[in-house]
Amino acid sequence: MGQEPYSSVFDLAASAAASNGGNNDPLLPPPRFVGSAQRPSDMPYNKYVAYDRQVPFDYPQRTWPEKTLKRAPRWCSVDLRDGNQALVDPMDSARKLRFWNLLVSMGFKEIEVGFPSASQTDYDFIRTLIERELIPDDVTIVVLTQAREHLIRRTYEALRGAKRAVVHFYNSVSILQREVVFRQDKAGIQKLATDAARLCRSLEADATGTDLYYEYSPESFSGAEPDYSLQVCDAVIDVIDPTPEHPMIINLPNTVEMTTPNVFADEVEFISSNLGRRDSVVLSLHPHNDEGMAVAATELGVLAGADRVEGCLLGNGERTGNVDLCTVALNLLVQGVDPQLDLSDMPSLRKTVEYCNQITVSERHPYVGDFVFTAFSGSHQDAIKKGLEARQQAALRDGADLDGYLWLVPYLPIDPKDVGGSYEAIIRVNSQSGKGGMAYLLKANHHLDLPKRLQVEFDKLVQGYADRTRHEVSGDQIWGLFKNEYLSVDDSGKIADDLATVDHDDRNIKPWGRFRLLGVSVSSGEEGSETVLEATVLDRGPEEADKAVRRRIQGRGNGPIAAFLQALGVFDLSVSVEDYAEHAMTAGTDALAASYVECKVGRQDRAQVMWGVGIDSSISTSSLKAIISAVNRFERG
Amino acid sequence: MGQEPYSSVFDLAASAAASNGGNNDPLLPPPRFVGSAQRPSDMPYNKYVAYDRQVPFDYPQRTWPEKTLKRAPRWCSVDLRDGNQALVDPMDSARKLRFWNLLVSMGFKEIEVGFPSASQTDYDFIRTLIERELIPDDVTIVVLTQAREHLIRRTYEALRGAKRAVVHFYNSVSILQREVVFRQDKAGIQKLATDAARLCRSLEADATGTDLYYEYSPESFSGAEPDYSLQVCDAVIDVIDPTPEHPMIINLPNTVEMTTPNVFADEVEFISSNLGRRDSVVLSLHPHNDEGMAVAATELGVLAGADRVEGCLLGNGERTGNVDLCTVALNLLVQGVDPQLDLSDMPSLRKTVEYCNQITVSERHPYVGDFVFTAFSGSHQDAIKKGLEARQQAALRDGADLDGYLWLVPYLPIDPKDVGGSYEAIIRVNSQSGKGGMAYLLKANHHLDLPKRLQVEFDKLVQGYADRTRHEVSGDQIWGLFKNEYLSVDDSGKIADDLATVDHDDRNIKPWGRFRLLGVSVSSGEEGSETVLEATVLDRGPEEADKAVRRRIQGRGNGPIAAFLQALGVFDLSVSVEDYAEHAMTAGTDALAASYVECKVGRQDRAQVMWGVGIDSSISTSSLKAIISAVNRFERG
Repeated sequence: MGQEPYSSVFDLAASAAASNGGNNDPLLPPPRFVGSAQRPSDMPYNKYVAYDRQVPFDYPQRTWPEKTLKRAPRWCSVDLRDGNQALVDPMDSARKLRFWNLLVSMGFKEIEVGFPSASQTDYDFIRTLIERELIPDDVTIVVLTQAREHLIRRTYEALRGAKRAVVHFYNSVSILQREVVFRQDKAGIQKLATDAARLCRSLEADATGTDLYYEYSPESFSGAEPDYSLQVCDAVIDVIDPTPEHPMIINLPNTVEMTTPNVFADEVEFISSNLGRRDSVVLSLHPHNDEGMAVAATELGVLAGADRVEGCLLGNGERTGNVDLCTVALNLLVQGVDPQLDLSDMPSLRKTVEYCNQITVSERHPYVGDFVFTAFSGSHQDAIKKGLEARQQAALRDGADLDGYLWLVPYLPIDPKDVGGSYEAIIRVNSQSGKGGMAYLLKANHHLDLPKRLQVEFDKLVQGYADRTRHEVSGDQIWGLFKNEYLSVDDSGKIADDLATVDHDDRNIKPWGRFRLLGVSVSSGEEGSETVLEATVLDRGPEEADKAVRRRIQGRGNGPIAAFLQALGVFDLSVSVEDYAEHAMTAGTDALAASYVECKVGRQDRAQVMWGVGIDSSISTSSLKAIISAVNRFERG
Repeated sequence: MGQEPYSSVFDLAASAAASNGGNNDPLLPPPRFVGSAQRPSDMPYNKYVAYDRQVPFDYPQRTWPEKTLKRAPRWCSVDLRDGNQALVDPMDSARKLRFWNLLVSMGFKEIEVGFPSASQTDYDFIRTLIERELIPDDVTIVVLTQAREHLIRRTYEALRGAKRAVVHFYNSVSILQREVVFRQDKAGIQKLATDAARLCRSLEADATGTDLYYEYSPESFSGAEPDYSLQVCDAVIDVIDPTPEHPMIINLPNTVEMTTPNVFADEVEFISSNLGRRDSVVLSLHPHNDEGMAVAATELGVLAGADRVEGCLLGNGERTGNVDLCTVALNLLVQGVDPQLDLSDMPSLRKTVEYCNQITVSERHPYVGDFVFTAFSGSHQDAIKKGLEARQQAALRDGADLDGYLWLVPYLPIDPKDVGGSYEAIIRVNSQSGKGGMAYLLKANHHLDLPKRLQVEFDKLVQGYADRTRHEVSGDQIWGLFKNEYLSVDDSGKIADDLATVDHDDRNIKPWGRFRLLGVSVSSGEEGSETVLEATVLDRGPEEADKAVRRRIQGRGNGPIAAFLQALGVFDLSVSVEDYAEHAMTAGTDALAASYVECKVGRQDRAQVMWGVGIDSSISTSSLKAIISAVNRFERG
């Protein structure tokens, strides 16, 4: 470990061509697959060398895989520095202040505010923070500088008058940069770091009144031999001379993500376990996302012993960005760990970050993208609906407040409400969806809880519509389809007036329906055995002609429904009820009731089983309307 | 392991409130930090339960952390199914075909093409592929179906006439879904799976002519006890009865990413090590990205024994998407492993994927986002410049072709050219950048290789400009600033005519400069000891008046430069040369030469050290022009 197996990194070229590549390693068992084998590509894999050959390191004594995340790390936002420096148009003071205020309001206690020796804008911003006393007492600012004398001096100038600050100095320690950028050996590079540390200590005399802390980054740590990084860090620590009461930060940058995160975790655990004065050190991570694994590298690194994490909100920063601190924090939340950051309004956080960075967040970004709480798949929608119901019942059983109750819902790893989302966007219907989504939307938006077989019946309509239009079917469109199919529609194009809770103004619905129930009176005989029903029905005839006729019809039976069915016989119809469900749509005495009646409707040689739906403030009228609905659908053919 | 510690998942509610959260676990050492402590948030962490309490599982015998990635897994694209079903507007046939053609051209040998029993569009697309014979002989289609009888039957109908196909059936096995969605016990859920397997086998009789394979997914595997999933898979395998020669696929979905990827890897290794008939099974992964770690879960899962990976190009799919296969494949490439996929033109791949999915790829998306090959940081830019030079020298040393030569460049984990990018976009300059970026751009775009101290001098101008404009400084703007500062500009607003290789039409450059060199003749004395120089100079006077005067000047000295310096004395100027560099700008006999001369220029009590730059086809003229450039800058004041 730590022995460089070559005198120049480019000596690896000779062996690169004979590298792992080609998938033809004779030591591997033959690949398993169905059908035909994959074929070699023309991609130039021979010009790359596996990480473990660039940085030989083995750490079989790792213990991190046995651990779980138990608490939030110390968070440090580098949005105003690493994030800002990677923007096409870096933030002006106004945008910087807005971002600063967001970070403070979220609960960050450490914020890296700039690279004052490299940029006048950064310098001025830091002066503004200090001179206008914008730094809360419990917030510590961090300023970055290269480990070079004139830059360090300028950095201390920027800090004049600050109550507390971290001076963060760095130099690159990677094998590659030692050779091609600094052209120095290990001792020379280490001297850069310790010289800088010594200069920092000597400048303290001019910084009275500022409670100064230090942070040292062995930059490009991921490209250096871990034992060399350890040696440099120990040397720097000896110069800074921190104590458990006044520790320093050692920050391990995954400057370029070069391999799987378990290797980074091994390296972090090696450093954490071997630092000479570990109890005086806050061990920190600074992961980048070149291979798309920064979140994983961070979490495994915390398991491996890191105390602190540097990153950006939603993952801004050079190239592919720094680790997204929001994702890491919310990953902790769903493990039952307090993230110690306020992430309760992600939509507004996202708006501020997008405004400041001028970078749009992807639709599929964890926890905050437009699509992350949506479910288009039918089976997912069905499971979510059932899961939400089961959770509601369990909370009721436990007498618990639903909002704070245990969140276990299929396909929704977090309660959207906890991050400022809503359920409304969850279920979306397209041609790939099943009936669960449609049923959920009718329930959520219109308080209609369709019986299972009615769901199946209506779903065919929705799917046919989705297949024809090849577009997402919106909740409004589903409601339009439903009204058009099941609810009586009068000549004005409006649905029945008493649908007080729903939108009446869908002009796209063509009026139809032979029958309309205008009024009804029900009387029971004194013996209580038979009900007599009289109804007034508007009949537009089998052709739904413009000339409608008012008909008074009468029937008798074992209750109003039976009597109504008999009364319909006057139109040559035989109607029987196969299934029936009803529920209140809203709470209170003026509640509307929804009735669902599955009827067998017949005339002469034709008979059909179909559902009807009725809505009315009277529960008995709603069921009669539901029968009319089924009959009208039968008449429509 | 595998014992459910509760009768209902919601029994966890009682203990959730007393969960890990709060960061106050007395067993943890006190947190280390500088400054003030973080404070508890109001986030409702108590309603979530840690993964290891939902799914207790321990696998200390893991071996995957010792392994490295050695070859490409079997790739299966699910873009046309999982990806497509999660789109607001699922693809029509034209878009599907375009995506299909892309996948085939990249080298995919397995492509999941739809869920034909759930969507008529999918059904029709599969029929089109089969009937129009669009499936190459070495490509196998996969079709998905729930493990339910009528859906399976419909699936076989969709496959009529296919030469080869995988029937992929699934049912959810998670603890949560067993309870709240299916309301069945372990045996009941297992029976769903084995019944489906049996039905599949029985339908084979009607599918003669099709080489049928099977894939079974214990869906929501990540939410199930691993030993129960194992048991269900073994039972399904026994029914399907695969052989090493005709294996089946067992696909482990990380349906919802619920914890760190090392736990998923433990679960995968457990399954891989314990499957009864492992040699007849292709073990597959289907990772989702809810916690932003799908790439890591995939790579660790492959280390843990998986043979096959399902995912989407650039990470489409339900909610946060499936794993991005491009990132995983290119992560293999940079380890020296042939990805067995053609990813050589990522910009065009991205264009097709964006067109088909109607989702824009983020600027920071690994390997393909707009910003991933950019470096705004000055120290990064400097290191990249030096790294590219060192690599070039090493290739020269080894007599190797540069394009195929070992790629080791700081901050650039992959050669942009290998994925269809270019170097032009790499270096971008903003107010946060140092001189490295500016120097790189002048070299890359204008063949000017500025000496270090000239870089420092010019960089102040660029940084001042960036700080004033608060915008990115483009390569053109840098060139404009450079011309305006160093290159003689004539009255027409054009720079000297012989700058044949550069853009002449920057009208924003105000002409300036007291002197202009019109002609020169040099003669050496016969003894060779002294040079006599005669030059014609246009002098617009100290005020740069409109009336210019032609002056013939003469000087003598030890070479043309010394003679020219002496000749300038006629203007009351004393000029001496402090440093000097020059190089050819292009190859060939008509090459231009660039000269950089650091001069000390003085008149009476004022003296200043400044650089001048001259470009000319004659290397001796270019150095004289450089001196004029420095003098003109001095005169400008």
